[in-house]
Amino acid sequence: MVDGFDQDLPLSSNYALIAVSYSGSTLETLEQFKKLAQRARAIAVVSGKGELLELALSKGALVEQVGGALAPRFGFPQLLFFTFKVFSSLIGESWPLRELQECSKKLSEWCTTSFPVKLTEKVAKDLGDRYAVVYASEHLKPVGYRWKTQINENAKLPAFFSVLPEANHNEVNSWKKTKEFYALVLKGSFYTTHTNASIFAYIQASGLQHTQLEFKGETRIEEMLRATVIGDLLSIKLAEMNSVDVVATPLISQVKSLQQSFLKGVKPC
Amino acid sequence: MVDGFDQDLPLSSNYALIAVSYSGSTLETLEQFKKLAQRARAIAVVSGKGELLELALSKGALVEQVGGALAPRFGFPQLLFFTFKVFSSLIGESWPLRELQECSKKLSEWCTTSFPVKLTEKVAKDLGDRYAVVYASEHLKPVGYRWKTQINENAKLPAFFSVLPEANHNEVNSWKKTKEFYALVLKGSFYTTHTNASIFAYIQASGLQHTQLEFKGETRIEEMLRATVIGDLLSIKLAEMNSVDVVATPLISQVKSLQQSFLKGVKPC
Repeated sequence: MVDGFDQDLPLSSNYALIAVSYSGSTLETLEQFKKLAQRARAIAVVSGKGELLELALSKGALVEQVGGALAPRFGFPQLLFFTFKVFSSLIGESWPLRELQECSKKLSEWCTTSFPVKLTEKVAKDLGDRYAVVYASEHLKPVGYRWKTQINENAKLPAFFSVLPEANHNEVNSWKKTKEFYALVLKGSFYTTHTNASIFAYIQASGLQHTQLEFKGETRIEEMLRATVIGDLLSIKLAEMNSVDVVATPLISQVKSLQQSFLKGVKPC
Repeated sequence: MVDGFDQDLPLSSNYALIAVSYSGSTLETLEQFKKLAQRARAIAVVSGKGELLELALSKGALVEQVGGALAPRFGFPQLLFFTFKVFSSLIGESWPLRELQECSKKLSEWCTTSFPVKLTEKVAKDLGDRYAVVYASEHLKPVGYRWKTQINENAKLPAFFSVLPEANHNEVNSWKKTKEFYALVLKGSFYTTHTNASIFAYIQASGLQHTQLEFKGETRIEEMLRATVIGDLLSIKLAEMNSVDVVATPLISQVKSLQQSFLKGVKPC
């Protein structure tokens, strides 16, 4: 996983590169693609537009086109599906894509029969106007991070993300004097007993007001996707409650143009 | 880097294991050590007490003893030095330890001639009673994370940590409605122009009140250590300002005993 401008990974020439960017114009993805595509044994691009598509075509990369979502973050199902697809293709194994497809069938059923709007409404109400601190462990770590960023982007609210057991060693000391923060604790049925013990201990010792949410699935990926759906819905609910436009993110456009103006003003290093 | 209970790394049998725990009783370090020591080609332990020391001796591991600091977080210089020492020894190269030693000489001089207390006092005053959000990039990422945890542990205050350019894509949308947060932006002289552009854009677009701190060194490690010293001092200054005991962390002891009681109450999985 590379997500900045400068990482130099200790790679041999025997690696496959998968570049993923909904817009095809994410600056750090482009810079890293230019650097890493040169020596890669195989290249795939999940995008469908922008400079990344042009680069992909010029390099003869495997390309999967995405598009049509309201915004990149709502294109997540596409991005995930096509990333699994090119990954399966690059490693010559069908199981990653098959597992995702089986799981997405079950999720479709779940969403049509018992769409969990009430749960997210309850969590949003419990959170109120406090700041969410999302806690996650093991396979739910990337999901917890998405909860935070979806609350940031959709509801335009501060939200934070921490990992357990790590927070047991430091962050646990933070909360005694403040009532402005509220913990959303993500749990999965695959967590080890030790991890559950660390969560139990954190919640008790920190004194944080909190909600624990348990996600169940036959596989880790199923739990991850169920939790992702709930987090996305929660962020939209919070936007509604705060009368905020979910889709518009004018500050991200502003960031892009400020970044460009800064880069034009300085000589390349 | 392994910091939880369940990671299964795709390791061959050709790896060296370095386990680091000041107390020698960190549960996740012990569990992972038991799992990973079995197949490791070489093992080193930086600890000096607890169950980890016993395990290390029974496995014939290279052991470096640490101890005597007020608390694990103040043992950081020891932990770093001995981790570099065993790393140098395991890979059969002297440069990592030599580079650290050269750098620590310069830092000693800096700390005796121009100890940066005034800077940390100014930053602490500017921060006031707002919550710190520490931003870092590239080689300063682990340092930024330590700033957050030192503010948590020493000053017992909430503090948060984010990475740029990543935050440009989501967190930038969070701050318009709130004045309770204050950004501490860590910058290094080795940052790429693109990274500096992303920081410039974030600060402008987010509208966050902030202080930018620039650290200079001949090497990345020197910048990292200078920034670490400033962060540690800042957290102690904040503790003073809030009349908080820097050393005592009763909640961490409570976490450990709660964790044990939970584990005794359930059957091992």
